[in-house]
Amino acid sequence: MLSNLITFDQTTGLSADVKPIQRRLSEMAGMYLDEATRAAMVEQNDPLVYEFHDLGVPERPGAIAYGTSITYAGKVGDEYFMTKGHFHSILETAEVYYCLKGQGLMLMENPEGDWELQKLTPGAAVYVPERFAHRSINTHPSDPLVTFFAFRGDAGHDYGTIESQGFRKLAIERGGKCEIIDNPRRRA
Amino acid sequence: MLSNLITFDQTTGLSADVKPIQRRLSEMAGMYLDEATRAAMVEQNDPLVYEFHDLGVPERPGAIAYGTSITYAGKVGDEYFMTKGHFHSILETAEVYYCLKGQGLMLMENPEGDWELQKLTPGAAVYVPERFAHRSINTHPSDPLVTFFAFRGDAGHDYGTIESQGFRKLAIERGGKCEIIDNPRRRA
Repeated sequence: MLSNLITFDQTTGLSADVKPIQRRLSEMAGMYLDEATRAAMVEQNDPLVYEFHDLGVPERPGAIAYGTSITYAGKVGDEYFMTKGHFHSILETAEVYYCLKGQGLMLMENPEGDWELQKLTPGAAVYVPERFAHRSINTHPSDPLVTFFAFRGDAGHDYGTIESQGFRKLAIERGGKCEIIDNPRRRA
Repeated sequence: MLSNLITFDQTTGLSADVKPIQRRLSEMAGMYLDEATRAAMVEQNDPLVYEFHDLGVPERPGAIAYGTSITYAGKVGDEYFMTKGHFHSILETAEVYYCLKGQGLMLMENPEGDWELQKLTPGAAVYVPERFAHRSINTHPSDPLVTFFAFRGDAGHDYGTIESQGFRKLAIERGGKCEIIDNPRRRA
């Protein structure tokens, strides 16, 4: 049974109580613009891109799923390390992220064609409205991006839609600065 | 319209973007064991006991209400400063608290007679299950207790039940230590 007290380090986001789910670059085939560089990086050391907690709270509409998400610093070519991103299976469910450490972006888009970008800095609470897919992006050169998240227990994850069509926008580094560009490989 | 980015200071819990709701001791008549001391403290300077944010997210089952809660250090006689505490109007809705700063307790009870106590320390995520009333208690001699909270947007607040019957348990200081005692004025 899930304990009602779980401690997450405010700097690393990790917990002595529970194990995170880890996503290495090998699990993100086709999600970065520069697939050749991604494949070479997988060959070299297959870096850990992000980790997050799935605590197994009951999948009920009255429950709240929560935990931390840690996106590490790095780039695939010019593109910052990021999470896969997903819609909720129950599309009409929101999510909130509270940034504990690091520097990054929350990229959001809905099926109606709206998209939104918010900055994640320590202390920032970013609200992902109902119907919006969301992806965390770490824009810092070295520090992990650590957030605490909460959403409805039965919301579920739809990764497939993003895996097949991609996000409308991408975050890349140009001349040392973050730029948001149209995703040339978007399939809608 | 509510912005999707609101920043809350990780140490104070306060925000330059939004104003908190403040609760002074004068608004907590009958909630502390030592009513005479409470009345005298109200006469003297009516201290601020706690503040929290109500950001006005849509009251929809898919929305997530969130913000910070700050309970200040202090006592009414031997009883630690605390929030009024409440059930959700939709009883079958949970809540999660992530402690940012300070030291305290989350006191919980449900209508079936179960009660639970969890320690709030920086990094602790305390889960308030469905059906549980909940109250934050600051047990530190001087530091504010700061938490980030999230619950379903339509959950609502039922303060009346606790105002009329009280919690089953109280947190008091005896010999410099926190003790949990039965509430002698509980009306069930």
